Amino acid sequence: MDSFTPTKRSTLKRLPGRGEYEREPVYQILDEGFVCHVGFVVEGQPFVIPTGYARAGDTLYIHGAQASRMLRTLREGVEVCLTVTLVDGMVMARSAFHHSINYRSVMVFGRAVSVEDGAEKWEALRALTEHLAPGRWAEVRQPTDGEVRATLVLALSLVEASAKIRTGPPVDDEEDYELPVWAGVVPLRMVADEPVDDPRLTPGIEQPPHVLNYTRGVRR
Amino acid sequence: MDSFTPTKRSTLKRLPGRGEYEREPVYQILDEGFVCHVGFVVEGQPFVIPTGYARAGDTLYIHGAQASRMLRTLREGVEVCLTVTLVDGMVMARSAFHHSINYRSVMVFGRAVSVEDGAEKWEALRALTEHLAPGRWAEVRQPTDGEVRATLVLALSLVEASAKIRTGPPVDDEEDYELPVWAGVVPLRMVADEPVDDPRLTPGIEQPPHVLNYTRGVRR
Repeated sequence: MDSFTPTKRSTLKRLPGRGEYEREPVYQILDEGFVCHVGFVVEGQPFVIPTGYARAGDTLYIHGAQASRMLRTLREGVEVCLTVTLVDGMVMARSAFHHSINYRSVMVFGRAVSVEDGAEKWEALRALTEHLAPGRWAEVRQPTDGEVRATLVLALSLVEASAKIRTGPPVDDEEDYELPVWAGVVPLRMVADEPVDDPRLTPGIEQPPHVLNYTRGVRR
Repeated sequence: MDSFTPTKRSTLKRLPGRGEYEREPVYQILDEGFVCHVGFVVEGQPFVIPTGYARAGDTLYIHGAQASRMLRTLREGVEVCLTVTLVDGMVMARSAFHHSINYRSVMVFGRAVSVEDGAEKWEALRALTEHLAPGRWAEVRQPTDGEVRATLVLALSLVEASAKIRTGPPVDDEEDYELPVWAGVVPLRMVADEPVDDPRLTPGIEQPPHVLNYTRGVRR
């Protein structure tokens, strides 16, 4: 299936032209990002918690300590809204009213399940580490049985998802284009600075390729 | 009041050492960021929507079209959880288990109210534009009465808030420090590229100072 079937909750109500229900652009956004905001409800109270994630195929994984309140709540099968947002620029219009932000965001709806199968859990942990830096998993000490048990991994199937994208220059009212005001976009992106060695790093260990020239997503 | 009084929902349950209830660090995070994730509940279903915001004093403002489903829901006075997250780095440990992300996040709880007072609404719109780029408001065409009426501005009092901060190098198990694995932090930050002129920009209008060398927050 190459596209998501829009549902009531995943369909953009306003500005439907910014909506995207194809799998490929949704997955590109999910793969470029690495922090999501997980929304869930406890006794009527919404919580929005930032956490890392990784995609493997048509599944999103999040993880944490078995004691995590968020994960313990989610594993009960409550409704989740998981949102990933990448900010691409400040949109400066000639009028205050038409200022905006260029961004790409994905919302995923569904109910998470705890990953109990050992092989899937291992693959999820691998994906979560690799999503931070491809090549990392093979270089580090992999989890012990105790660490795997201490970790709660939740899976959210990518069945109900949509992206919302704003791109391009400002859109001003026609009569404002003649105003003597600069308008355009200030592009924004996340960059990595030089890796900082752990103060306790054993002398002689060099920075591996996967942390040098670290980048995410497509260069623009 | 220089600090927030922790409540049940704003108190960090795990890793309490990462919690921060002083106003100043919370406001620094809110002022460096400019996109928040707003969580609310509609008929039991959580939604998490990214949107711009600005702080003025002890109030956070968000805004949008009167037709916005999110804003129309929030103005009814439902419970909100508003989260701002700044990502500072990838934390690379010697073990997969201890990988982490350096970040600063703020969660605000409460109920939003619609700003109906004309002067406060004007100040909120000014703050929202200035928060994108200080100096912008004075240079652009300011809102007409019609635009002000078409805009819904909501205020969320900064009464119940907390920050969560992870910083510094990885923390490995003691016996792992002798492993021949590189460990450290890959610092991440958001940068602005050169401003891109609107294709319809009137020739001769130069890029103003507030978009040249655009930065957010404290330089590191």
